[in-house]
Amino acid sequence: MKENKEICHSLGGVKKVYEKGNIYDIEVGMRQVDLTPTIIDGKTQDNGSLRLYDTSGVYSDENVEVDVKKGLPRLREKWIKERDDIERLEDFTSNYTKQRLIDDENAEFCFKTKHLPYKAKAGRRITQMSLAKQGVITPEMEYVAIRENMTSNKKEDSYITPEFVREEVAAGRAVIPANINHPEAEPMIIGSRFLVKINTNIGNSALGSDIEKEVEKAVLSSRYGGDTLMDLSTGKHIHQTREWVIRNCPVPLGSVPIYQALEKVNGKAENLNWEIYKDTLIEQCEQGVDYFTIHAGLLQKHLPLIAKRLTGIVSRGGSIMAKWIAYHKKENFLYTHFEEICQILAQYDVAVSIGDGLRPGSIADANDEAQFGELETMGELTKVAWKYDVQVLIEGPGHVPLHKIKENMEKQKQLCHNAPFYTLGPLTTDISPGYDHISSAIGAAMIGWYGTAMLCYVTPKEHLGLPNKEDVRAGIMAYKIAAHAADIAKGHPSAIERDNALSKARFEFRWKDQFNLSIDPQRAMEYYGAEKLQGTPFCTMCGPDFCAMRISREVSKQK
Amino acid sequence: MKENKEICHSLGGVKKVYEKGNIYDIEVGMRQVDLTPTIIDGKTQDNGSLRLYDTSGVYSDENVEVDVKKGLPRLREKWIKERDDIERLEDFTSNYTKQRLIDDENAEFCFKTKHLPYKAKAGRRITQMSLAKQGVITPEMEYVAIRENMTSNKKEDSYITPEFVREEVAAGRAVIPANINHPEAEPMIIGSRFLVKINTNIGNSALGSDIEKEVEKAVLSSRYGGDTLMDLSTGKHIHQTREWVIRNCPVPLGSVPIYQALEKVNGKAENLNWEIYKDTLIEQCEQGVDYFTIHAGLLQKHLPLIAKRLTGIVSRGGSIMAKWIAYHKKENFLYTHFEEICQILAQYDVAVSIGDGLRPGSIADANDEAQFGELETMGELTKVAWKYDVQVLIEGPGHVPLHKIKENMEKQKQLCHNAPFYTLGPLTTDISPGYDHISSAIGAAMIGWYGTAMLCYVTPKEHLGLPNKEDVRAGIMAYKIAAHAADIAKGHPSAIERDNALSKARFEFRWKDQFNLSIDPQRAMEYYGAEKLQGTPFCTMCGPDFCAMRISREVSKQK
Repeated sequence: MKENKEICHSLGGVKKVYEKGNIYDIEVGMRQVDLTPTIIDGKTQDNGSLRLYDTSGVYSDENVEVDVKKGLPRLREKWIKERDDIERLEDFTSNYTKQRLIDDENAEFCFKTKHLPYKAKAGRRITQMSLAKQGVITPEMEYVAIRENMTSNKKEDSYITPEFVREEVAAGRAVIPANINHPEAEPMIIGSRFLVKINTNIGNSALGSDIEKEVEKAVLSSRYGGDTLMDLSTGKHIHQTREWVIRNCPVPLGSVPIYQALEKVNGKAENLNWEIYKDTLIEQCEQGVDYFTIHAGLLQKHLPLIAKRLTGIVSRGGSIMAKWIAYHKKENFLYTHFEEICQILAQYDVAVSIGDGLRPGSIADANDEAQFGELETMGELTKVAWKYDVQVLIEGPGHVPLHKIKENMEKQKQLCHNAPFYTLGPLTTDISPGYDHISSAIGAAMIGWYGTAMLCYVTPKEHLGLPNKEDVRAGIMAYKIAAHAADIAKGHPSAIERDNALSKARFEFRWKDQFNLSIDPQRAMEYYGAEKLQGTPFCTMCGPDFCAMRISREVSKQK
Repeated sequence: MKENKEICHSLGGVKKVYEKGNIYDIEVGMRQVDLTPTIIDGKTQDNGSLRLYDTSGVYSDENVEVDVKKGLPRLREKWIKERDDIERLEDFTSNYTKQRLIDDENAEFCFKTKHLPYKAKAGRRITQMSLAKQGVITPEMEYVAIRENMTSNKKEDSYITPEFVREEVAAGRAVIPANINHPEAEPMIIGSRFLVKINTNIGNSALGSDIEKEVEKAVLSSRYGGDTLMDLSTGKHIHQTREWVIRNCPVPLGSVPIYQALEKVNGKAENLNWEIYKDTLIEQCEQGVDYFTIHAGLLQKHLPLIAKRLTGIVSRGGSIMAKWIAYHKKENFLYTHFEEICQILAQYDVAVSIGDGLRPGSIADANDEAQFGELETMGELTKVAWKYDVQVLIEGPGHVPLHKIKENMEKQKQLCHNAPFYTLGPLTTDISPGYDHISSAIGAAMIGWYGTAMLCYVTPKEHLGLPNKEDVRAGIMAYKIAAHAADIAKGHPSAIERDNALSKARFEFRWKDQFNLSIDPQRAMEYYGAEKLQGTPFCTMCGPDFCAMRISREVSKQK
C-alpha cells in the first residue's frame, strides 16, 4: 500500500498527525502541512502549519502497515465494548450469511478473518442518537468535534464542541453513521452545521468489475477525500465483495439492501418479500454496513403520478419497489414494515437513509408532484425512525435546474423536520453526458450552501457506464470543490483558512505549499511541471515580463 | 479541415442548415439534429428534428472548403459596404502595421492575403449601437434574432425579435461585437436577456506556443462552442499571430492592447505612453479585433487599497497600469485619454470591454473596497463610451465565494447602468488548482443565472500553465454547461427544449439522439462505447436486470 502513503507526502512537508481527546483517550488523525517561510527582501517570516481534514485513515500513516487480507485496525472496538450495552453473538443471525460461510463454491472469494457480530443487549438502546438523547457524549462525538475543527487556528471560538455535536445528534439534525460491526471506520458527522460531506459510489454490476477492483476503488475513494462510501454492487459475489470492502474501509459504508434481496430472487421484483428483505438487512447489519438506503417513501398512491413524467422513475430501488407495488396491488412492504426495520437497525446502530425512489431524472420532472409527494412520506417515516433512536438521512435529487434548487432544500427541511439532506448532485442540465460530474457539482455546491449535509458524487461516466479509477478521482475532486465552496459560503469555522493559506502561498510563489494545500497535489504538480518547482518567481501562464503578481508586489513596495 | 466537419456528423443524423432572414437576404447557420423515431410496442412515433446554436461557422459545412492560408469567406463585407457609411483606406494607418508589412524578418510568419482596412466616413456614426439608436435594424440584428431562437419550436411566441435586439443594443443592455474589419465573423449578441455566451482565451507567451497552434486552438474553440475568442498573446509575433487567427475566426475576437503596447517598449511598463498605445489601438482596429479590454477604471486613488489585500493585483493589464501610475505618480493614461479611445473605436465599431484590473484573485479579496471602487469608475466610463455610441462590456471577477456572488451582479447592474457583465468564472474556492474549470464553472453558472451575459472560461491549467487542446476542450465544456444551466434558469425561450429532447431520447434508449444532442457527442460516445450503439435497452451502469428506466416503463404500461 506504498502508493497510498504517497498522496500525502508527494512534495514533502506533509505528515500524518494525531490530536488527542480531552474527554476520552482517543487520537484523531489529520494531515498537517508544514508551510515554508515567506522570504521578502531577505527577511524570513514563519508561516506555521495547517491541519487538514483527512479521510484516508491509516492508509496515509507511514507507521502502519496495512494488509488488505487482514483488514484495518479496529479503532472503535474498545469504545463500543466499554459501553457495556452490547454483546457478541456466537453465530451470525442471517441464514444467508450462514450459508455463505459453508458454501465451498465461494471459498476463493471469501475474506478469511471472521469477526463474529456485535448486537445490542436485550432492551438496551445503543445508537449514537439514543446516547445523545440520554445526555451522553460518546468518544465518537468528541472525535468528530476535534475532526471538524481541524484546520481552525481559533478552535476555542468554534461552536463545534463535543456538547454541540451531542445536541445536534440528539435532535436528529446530524448523523454519525457508526455500525458497531464496522469498528474500522473513523467517526464522521453528517449535518448542515458541519462540513459538507461527499459520498462516493462503488460496486460491480452484472457487466463488469471484480472484488479486487472494488477494494482498490474504496481505498482510492477515501484517499482522495470521500467521506462515506456506498457499495452499489448488483452482480455476482455481493456478500463477499462487501466483506472485503468493509474490512478495509476507513469511512462509513452504505448500501441499498434491496439490490441484494432482488439478486436472491433472481432479479424478479414481484418475488421479493419481507422475509427475504429482513434476512438481507440482518446479514448486512452484522457485516457492518453503516447506513441503508431504504425506498420506503414510495407509495401506491404515487404511481399514477409517474405517467405524467418525461423520464418516469430513474432510481433503481424506486423502480424495483414500483414494480412490486404494481404487480401485487399492495402497499410498499418497506413502508408497511418500517417499524420492524427500525427495530432491527437500532440494535446495530445502522442509520437509515430514506431513498427517493421518485427523484427527478430530468430537468422537466424536477420539483413535481411525484417528488414532493414522496418527500412528505419520507418526513412521516423520519418521525417513526426517531421513535426507535434510529439516525436518519433523507435522500434527494437528481436533476434540478438552478432556479428550483432552493425550494428542494426548503421543502426538505420543513417536511423532514431538519433531518440531514443527502442529495445526488443535482444535475443542473440534462445535456452533459460525459461531463455530468460538472453539471452536478454546480447544483451540489448550491444545495450544499443552502444546507444539504452530504453530496453524493457523480462521475463523468454517469448515464454512460461504470467509472474507472480516473473517473472516481474526477468525481471526487468535483465534489470536494462543491463541498468546500459550500463550507466557505456557510461560514464553517475551519473552511476559509485553507484558501487563505493557499492564496498567500500563491502570491508569494511558494509553489510547494500551494500544491500541498490543494485538493489534488499530484495533479496540480503534474500540470505545473515538477521540474519547475525550484522557486520560479512567475507563472508559466504569463511568463517573466507579464507576471501580474510580481508587478503587484513591486507596486506595493514603492508605496 | 476534414476533422472539423466530423464533430458535427460523428454519429450521422446531424447536418448544417441555414435559415433565411425575413428582412435581409441573410442565411443563419445552425446545426440540425434529425431525431430517430420512438418505437414502442411496434408503433412508431416521429420525433422531428431540433436545431442547435452553432458557433463553428463554415468549419462544419461539408460544402465549404476552408483554406487557412486564404481565410474564411467574408460574410458581412457586403452588408457593411451597403450601409455606405464607410470607406476603404488606401493604406493602413498604424505606423507599426506599415513597418510589419515591409519587415523582411517577419515575412515567413505573415498571412499572405492583405485586406485594406475599412473605416467610418468622416462624421458618420457606424456602430451597431448608433444604428440601433437611429432605429435601424441591421442585418447583424436580424441574424442574431434568428440565431437566438434556433432551437425554439415556438419562435413566434419568443420575445427575441429583430426589433427587440435593436432596442437592447440601443439601450446598451446588449452588445454585437462587429468590427467592420472582421467580416469573417458571424454576428452574435451579448446581453442578459439572450443566451449566456462563453469566451475562450488563446495566446502564446514568451515561454510557449506558436502561430499554427494558436490558429488550431481558435478553430477548435469555435468548433466546441466558444462564442467569442480572446487572443492574449504576449510573446513573439503578436501581430502576425493575430492576423492568422482573425482571418480564420468565425466568432468575434477580443484582445488586450496593452500587452502588445508593452512589448513595443520591451516590457518596461514605465515606458508606456499614449502615442504607442494609440497606434496599437489603431493597428488592431484595422486588423479586425472586435473588442478591446481596456483597464481604464484603475485609478491613482485605488492603489493604496491594494496593500490591504491578500493577493494584491492579479490582472496582468491592471498590474501594468498600476506600475505605470506608481512610477509616474500620474493618473492612468487610459482614463485620461478615454474619450479619444472611444473616438477611435467608434470609427471601426470596436466594442470596449472595460477591464477589471482590481478583480479579486482570492476568496479573501472578493467584494472589497478596491474591487467595487474600480467598478464605480467603470460605470462612469460606460456613460462616456455610450456618448460616442461605442458598445460596452464590463469585466468582472475572479474569485468570489458563493454567498458574495449576487452582490457582484447587483452592484454591476446599478453602477454600470445595465451594460452587459462579462466575468471570469468566478472561482468559488482557491484550493482547486488543476480543477479550476470546475470551481469557476460553479460560480459562472450562478452569476450567469443572476444576469451575467458572457462567461470567460477557465481551463484546468489556470494558475499552473498554458492550456493545450484537451484543456481548451475541458474548459469550454465546463462553461457550456454553466451557460446552459443559467439559460434554463433564466427561462431563455430556446434553452429547455434541448434538455427535454435529450431526456426523452435517454428514457427511450435512443442512444444516437442522446449523443447528438449532448454538448460533446464524441466524448459521450467514447465513454459509452461506440460498439454498443445498436439499441441496447439498458445502460452499462446498471445492467439488464436492474435498469430503472426499463422497469419504470413496464410499470407505466401495466397501469
